[in-house]
Amino acid sequence: MESRRGSSMALLTDLYQFTMAYGYWRAGRHRQPAAFELFFRRCPFQGAFALGAGLGDCLAFLRSFRFSRADIEYLKSVLPATTEEDFFEYLHTVDASEVCILSAPEGSVVFSRVPLLQVRGPLLVVQLMETTLLCLVNYASLVATNAARFRLAAGPGKKLMEMGLRRAQGLDGGLSASKYSYVGGFDFTSNVLAGKLYGIPVQGTLAHSYVSSFTSVDDVNPRSLLPLNGKEPMDLPTLVDKWLTQVCQLLRVPPEKVSCGERAAFMSYAIAYPHNFQGLVDTYCVMRSGIPNFCAVALALNQLGYRAIGVRLDSGDLAKQSVEIRHVFRTCSKHFQVPWFETIPITVSNDVSEQSLEELSRELVEVNGSPRLKVTEDPEKTTLPGRKVVYRLWDEAGFPCMDLMALEEESAPEAGQEVEYWSLGGTESAGKVIPSAVEILHLVYFKDGQVCRSLPTLLDIKAHAQMSLDKLNPVHKKLQDPEAYQVAVTRKLYLLLLDLQKDS
Amino acid sequence: MESRRGSSMALLTDLYQFTMAYGYWRAGRHRQPAAFELFFRRCPFQGAFALGAGLGDCLAFLRSFRFSRADIEYLKSVLPATTEEDFFEYLHTVDASEVCILSAPEGSVVFSRVPLLQVRGPLLVVQLMETTLLCLVNYASLVATNAARFRLAAGPGKKLMEMGLRRAQGLDGGLSASKYSYVGGFDFTSNVLAGKLYGIPVQGTLAHSYVSSFTSVDDVNPRSLLPLNGKEPMDLPTLVDKWLTQVCQLLRVPPEKVSCGERAAFMSYAIAYPHNFQGLVDTYCVMRSGIPNFCAVALALNQLGYRAIGVRLDSGDLAKQSVEIRHVFRTCSKHFQVPWFETIPITVSNDVSEQSLEELSRELVEVNGSPRLKVTEDPEKTTLPGRKVVYRLWDEAGFPCMDLMALEEESAPEAGQEVEYWSLGGTESAGKVIPSAVEILHLVYFKDGQVCRSLPTLLDIKAHAQMSLDKLNPVHKKLQDPEAYQVAVTRKLYLLLLDLQKDS
Repeated sequence: MESRRGSSMALLTDLYQFTMAYGYWRAGRHRQPAAFELFFRRCPFQGAFALGAGLGDCLAFLRSFRFSRADIEYLKSVLPATTEEDFFEYLHTVDASEVCILSAPEGSVVFSRVPLLQVRGPLLVVQLMETTLLCLVNYASLVATNAARFRLAAGPGKKLMEMGLRRAQGLDGGLSASKYSYVGGFDFTSNVLAGKLYGIPVQGTLAHSYVSSFTSVDDVNPRSLLPLNGKEPMDLPTLVDKWLTQVCQLLRVPPEKVSCGERAAFMSYAIAYPHNFQGLVDTYCVMRSGIPNFCAVALALNQLGYRAIGVRLDSGDLAKQSVEIRHVFRTCSKHFQVPWFETIPITVSNDVSEQSLEELSRELVEVNGSPRLKVTEDPEKTTLPGRKVVYRLWDEAGFPCMDLMALEEESAPEAGQEVEYWSLGGTESAGKVIPSAVEILHLVYFKDGQVCRSLPTLLDIKAHAQMSLDKLNPVHKKLQDPEAYQVAVTRKLYLLLLDLQKDS
Repeated sequence: MESRRGSSMALLTDLYQFTMAYGYWRAGRHRQPAAFELFFRRCPFQGAFALGAGLGDCLAFLRSFRFSRADIEYLKSVLPATTEEDFFEYLHTVDASEVCILSAPEGSVVFSRVPLLQVRGPLLVVQLMETTLLCLVNYASLVATNAARFRLAAGPGKKLMEMGLRRAQGLDGGLSASKYSYVGGFDFTSNVLAGKLYGIPVQGTLAHSYVSSFTSVDDVNPRSLLPLNGKEPMDLPTLVDKWLTQVCQLLRVPPEKVSCGERAAFMSYAIAYPHNFQGLVDTYCVMRSGIPNFCAVALALNQLGYRAIGVRLDSGDLAKQSVEIRHVFRTCSKHFQVPWFETIPITVSNDVSEQSLEELSRELVEVNGSPRLKVTEDPEKTTLPGRKVVYRLWDEAGFPCMDLMALEEESAPEAGQEVEYWSLGGTESAGKVIPSAVEILHLVYFKDGQVCRSLPTLLDIKAHAQMSLDKLNPVHKKLQDPEAYQVAVTRKLYLLLLDLQKDS
């Protein structure tokens, strides 16, 4: 979030925020205390939870929030000519020094209608920050939530890799997607810059273009490979040819159907990376070319002391093919007496990246396009006696069971004590609950112009997200038709809300 | 596209591009001449055309394409440990000096299967650029195409404003969306930084939060306004009250139902911006509060010599309400004898921004998520005698009627001469056409490490896009069920493609 050609990121907002700021300033209301809250109206992806993310980006934005002379000059050129000069002078003095940010720790599980972020400060300043903070929290939380759902769908054992850069909404969109997919539970990214900037493990082997760029064994250069524990280089193509004959016999595949170019590509890659050979087996026919070629190269490598790291499938019926491939690996394992061959990892990259990513993106924007992350920005409300505190109540089974919003002046609920609540959403009803533990959801992260809490690393955030999800009752984590999480208010807040509704 | 903490944008690609690059390098093929083409397999949004955009960003990326020492060190840490040191030394010497980019001018109408961008250069280098260029062209072209479709839907007279920042996929995604919406035919953006960086006209007045932040006339401060041609400030609330009584009588609206807070907000804004008063009329009831308040304030302003610039509607049935509001304006115009009142602009911002933008985004990603912008990256093909040239043929009516792809060594088709072609897509059939004009679609934009053509401004690109669209036959511009544009190849290229298909 660096500045561009002398422009501050503080300009990254809607013009009407400035015209409104002028209106407030002109009416002498610009320093009036105000607050707004960021929350989802409904959880994304028809789920019952979201992961809150983007806090770190928000704090970085706040830290550098000010208007340069160049910004001010530009604003003069776009605001109505009658805008008073003093307003611009005032804007030049504005920064985040009087702004306070309260938030759930980044990566926390959050629920609809419960504030994710609370922003407090002078009316004019918080108004000018609104759009930018919304944008930062919105995208980050959606990507992280989506990744978390993928992780839930895949289970804890499978590795998930984000490789969406070429389809991202711009280069920075791609970077953010890598970052927040990682937070939400992905293991790797293919995006090298994201790896360098954020410390995310990067992975990747080869693409179809590499395979199809080889025509015959003549393209393999160099041809020789040093055995892992040997000193005499061996001619890999010669070895591979021998193995191919055996593999074709075993699998009853006509050798003339097996692509020479594909085999040349595999060999070339194996010679370059003998410890990291992965076969992308679907450039041509998977079972009649890709798999025989892979087995031949992998068995030759095995002879030289190397183990192939796996195969990758990028098209077709991935589940069906995976089963067939596993069967071949077992057959080879037994026949050639190579035990590790049986368990060679099979990676699929179409269903869990392209196709699901398509679904993912579509869902993402369905949320993105409708105003589900909504801001309540009524500064009048904030001058009411009391700001909101959110308590997360835990049940005996060790799950969070309710987020209870209360006024700041109310006494906190206590573990083991009965708490009265008014349920929000759908039918509003009163009830009572005895929490076995009570936690305050929001911490102060920014105060007096500074980040006032040591910020976690990205890895910490990812771990917190995982822990936060682990602690959530499975009924709320179901990908389809999950049970809604209880969100409620105290009697006092409920009556206050009723009053406000009556007034408007 | 600046560097981040010593990292080059050249790292913004998939890791497998580097492992493949190493494979090519190790096989001594890294300097082999190669080429790839960017094209849409199908036009986005079920349309028959797209706008090509993102070229300027691609050229900026190429200009700075190199790896710093820090990049190289990072790459060493993520590529397999067996990667030879000399490869990294070679990477450090790599830049775009031998890369050539051919492209249709930015903003041109382009069609499916026809290359939008041709990238030629050493195999290793073009491979490393592939993902990034795809991302840049993909997003820019989709946004521009989408904007063009909005422009077609709205007709030439209406003003279109992009205000999607708060829902953008990150801050930079928002900036790019502003930029390429403008290219595609939008008039304004609400994004101030986009205005400053790209020179896009910015607009915006006020939001619901401003209106709802006022409670009564007591909040109006200052209260007085100087008449346009007067020296004695007048108390606006007093004037407005008088007008409100008359308006309520005329419109038969009970005055006690008209919101005081809304009126206070309108007055406050009008006093701040008397030349730019726009009423956001749907915070409360449009016809019983918003419109009477707007009329009262606008008539008071009129008395002082100022003209309101309009009303804005952001919810509800926009078409129906617009008609009712226009009726009120006519009634007031006649009754109070204020002719300009009849034609006060009515702006709607929900249907054309929120709702359609939602649809827009969903469509966008539907394309974005599936690999329609596909790269043919087979370097073998590029060593075939001849590269492709695309000729755009024009018919007698002055419309482009066919994009004809030929081999570079073939003689160009000539105006008035019969041209044989083989139609692509669906059924392949031969045909003949006599073009009345012939144009070469691609120009060389980057050569010898430099941009070799003076680049148009954003406004030029926008104008080119508009002109390019104006010249397109309306049958291809239909938003639904458009007629497909003819894309064809020469006999020679056709036979070559057949050969290639046989081989594979």
